Amino acid sequence: MRTQVAIIGAGPAGLLLGHLLRLEGIDCVVLERQTGDYVLSRIRAGVLEQGTVALMERLGLDARMKAEGLPHDGFNLADGERLIRIDIKALTGKQVMVYGQTELTRDLMEASEGRGLEVIYQAADVALHAIESDAPYVTYTKDGAEHRVDARFIVGCDGFHGPSRAAIPASVGQTFERVYPFGWLGILADVPPCNHELIYAHHERGFALASQRSHTRSRYYIDVPLTEKLEDWSDARIWDELAIRLGPDAAAHITRGPSIEKSIAPLRSFVFEPMRHGSLLLCGDSAHIVPPTGAKGLNLAASDVHYAHEALLAFFRRADNDAVAGYSAKALRRVWASERFSWSLTKLMHRFPDDGPFERRMQLAELDYIASSEHAQRVIAENYVGLPV
Amino acid sequence: MRTQVAIIGAGPAGLLLGHLLRLEGIDCVVLERQTGDYVLSRIRAGVLEQGTVALMERLGLDARMKAEGLPHDGFNLADGERLIRIDIKALTGKQVMVYGQTELTRDLMEASEGRGLEVIYQAADVALHAIESDAPYVTYTKDGAEHRVDARFIVGCDGFHGPSRAAIPASVGQTFERVYPFGWLGILADVPPCNHELIYAHHERGFALASQRSHTRSRYYIDVPLTEKLEDWSDARIWDELAIRLGPDAAAHITRGPSIEKSIAPLRSFVFEPMRHGSLLLCGDSAHIVPPTGAKGLNLAASDVHYAHEALLAFFRRADNDAVAGYSAKALRRVWASERFSWSLTKLMHRFPDDGPFERRMQLAELDYIASSEHAQRVIAENYVGLPV
Repeated sequence: MRTQVAIIGAGPAGLLLGHLLRLEGIDCVVLERQTGDYVLSRIRAGVLEQGTVALMERLGLDARMKAEGLPHDGFNLADGERLIRIDIKALTGKQVMVYGQTELTRDLMEASEGRGLEVIYQAADVALHAIESDAPYVTYTKDGAEHRVDARFIVGCDGFHGPSRAAIPASVGQTFERVYPFGWLGILADVPPCNHELIYAHHERGFALASQRSHTRSRYYIDVPLTEKLEDWSDARIWDELAIRLGPDAAAHITRGPSIEKSIAPLRSFVFEPMRHGSLLLCGDSAHIVPPTGAKGLNLAASDVHYAHEALLAFFRRADNDAVAGYSAKALRRVWASERFSWSLTKLMHRFPDDGPFERRMQLAELDYIASSEHAQRVIAENYVGLPV
Repeated sequence: MRTQVAIIGAGPAGLLLGHLLRLEGIDCVVLERQTGDYVLSRIRAGVLEQGTVALMERLGLDARMKAEGLPHDGFNLADGERLIRIDIKALTGKQVMVYGQTELTRDLMEASEGRGLEVIYQAADVALHAIESDAPYVTYTKDGAEHRVDARFIVGCDGFHGPSRAAIPASVGQTFERVYPFGWLGILADVPPCNHELIYAHHERGFALASQRSHTRSRYYIDVPLTEKLEDWSDARIWDELAIRLGPDAAAHITRGPSIEKSIAPLRSFVFEPMRHGSLLLCGDSAHIVPPTGAKGLNLAASDVHYAHEALLAFFRRADNDAVAGYSAKALRRVWASERFSWSLTKLMHRFPDDGPFERRMQLAELDYIASSEHAQRVIAENYVGLPV
């Protein structure tokens, strides 16, 4: 098979890019190792920046998001005593959209066939070849047969563990990484949220997050040492811990219910440079990971896709090689800005085992400063809604 | 001797408080272990917040400061490539005043006799007694004789190593501390500054600060490991290192000259709680230390003095015990805010031995964010000119 752009990975980044390219008449094909159902079963973040919403609007795939998503005007930080509301609408003029990554992926997936976006699921053993040339290709096996896709560019949207980043020679790349000494224990339940907005709570027992997917589906998290085992955390124990960490006001409004998903996810900051090598571009988790505090992961993948799509368009429309050459630097500037925000919000809201009493007071002093300074609130708000692309 | 307030320490905090109390007709005496000349020989910070300037104005002791001090409208952060100017005047409507702590102390000292502020220098073996009663007293020896000062209150302005904080029972107090893995090597020279404003520089070789006391006296710093010995740092080596770390633009304007003072000072964050116990109040370095990044030390002492003076006034004028009881909480809120700013600016601008490549990129990303966001600049500016008292 021959195409213009071979996209590896049919998560939200790969499908977004595929649709954007198809909209411009550029040929592409998306290869996905898993089944579509498996992709949709992955529980991920659910807060979209306006820029991410705008991409769905440009595709005309925003109808269900607009009907079912929940626009939020603010969110809350809690410090064990009070809620500090960050009024993002008043401070930035913008909102964020609560809409599960799963739902966004479903919208993109269901529109694929009608829009001529070919997605090949269960493509196994995907391998990248000749990425330093102008004629790269991808091989994979499916149903026992070997296949090959020739393209002008390959875009790796295949996540942290995918083959794309690994195809770049080690001598070319540089990795930056921080692993955090805790994980997020998440619980998904079909109960109404305890607050109409999100609450990020800093408590002496640890971090907690009250999030949501809809008016009837709640997503909560607490941080736990990485040594904790999921089987030691009954639903009841999680609800009890949430009630303590979120504070009495929020606790009074928690509706408990059976978990429909429960997991412990490690937290990691990771960046790979460069985000382009030869004819291979990386988008989203294949190039970088942020800790989930602040919900930047999906949004950062979306801004990568925006830059990649613009660069590819410039190439195919105007034979502009510079745009592709400049993709990495352009994308990385926003990547580092989001890494910084996710890292700083993670550091502010979690207890770190190595922190002493002084560092803990620094966290409380920062929360106190945020509560008292409109400028500090503007800084958080402009990062939360997403810095300009 | 009997007085209303016995002040321990004739540095800027003790003298400021003494003058403010005398202005209101409250009796006080200041005890100082050293000679006046020794006090004036200590080289300290030189950037005054508007609130500190206002205290000198209230005392009518601002004439020389207004004539010789340099009002600054901004300062600069450098990241090895560029200067990021923080226009504090435009962002906050306020300025800071460059005027050496030594000069401010001299103004206060020289006005003491004329205003009936008794300062007893060379008071040795100062000891505090009965601080939990309403009749505390201080003993000291001078010229071989023992003396005693009875007072209603004692105010400890005697710095980190003075006897005041130590007089509070260990069971009552709590200390918070962070020691940094480097010190500031400072050089004072009678040469014109390299820039009309201060430059705080983050360079891969380490931190540098270009500061000044006047148009003809410069103060520069670089950070060095605490294992460094002063004798290994010739003037020439320091000037060479400054030229590298401050970057080519600043380096081109450095005027070299012989050092008139040279020292290595460790950096420390320290807070003691509470700042009042019984009839003893603590002000300034006796209760807290900040690293010098951001020049908060003297200004924080001045705001303590402001709060202490108000509380003592309420007591002696209106027999209001609550104001004294509330002194600690009121002062500590601002202390923690300044500790936070000094700590965060120190963390942003220095290389820490334990930091890996990711953390270093976080520093550069934060500087890049500050360069690009007016809100981020406002946050720094409002802290730099001093949060409201």
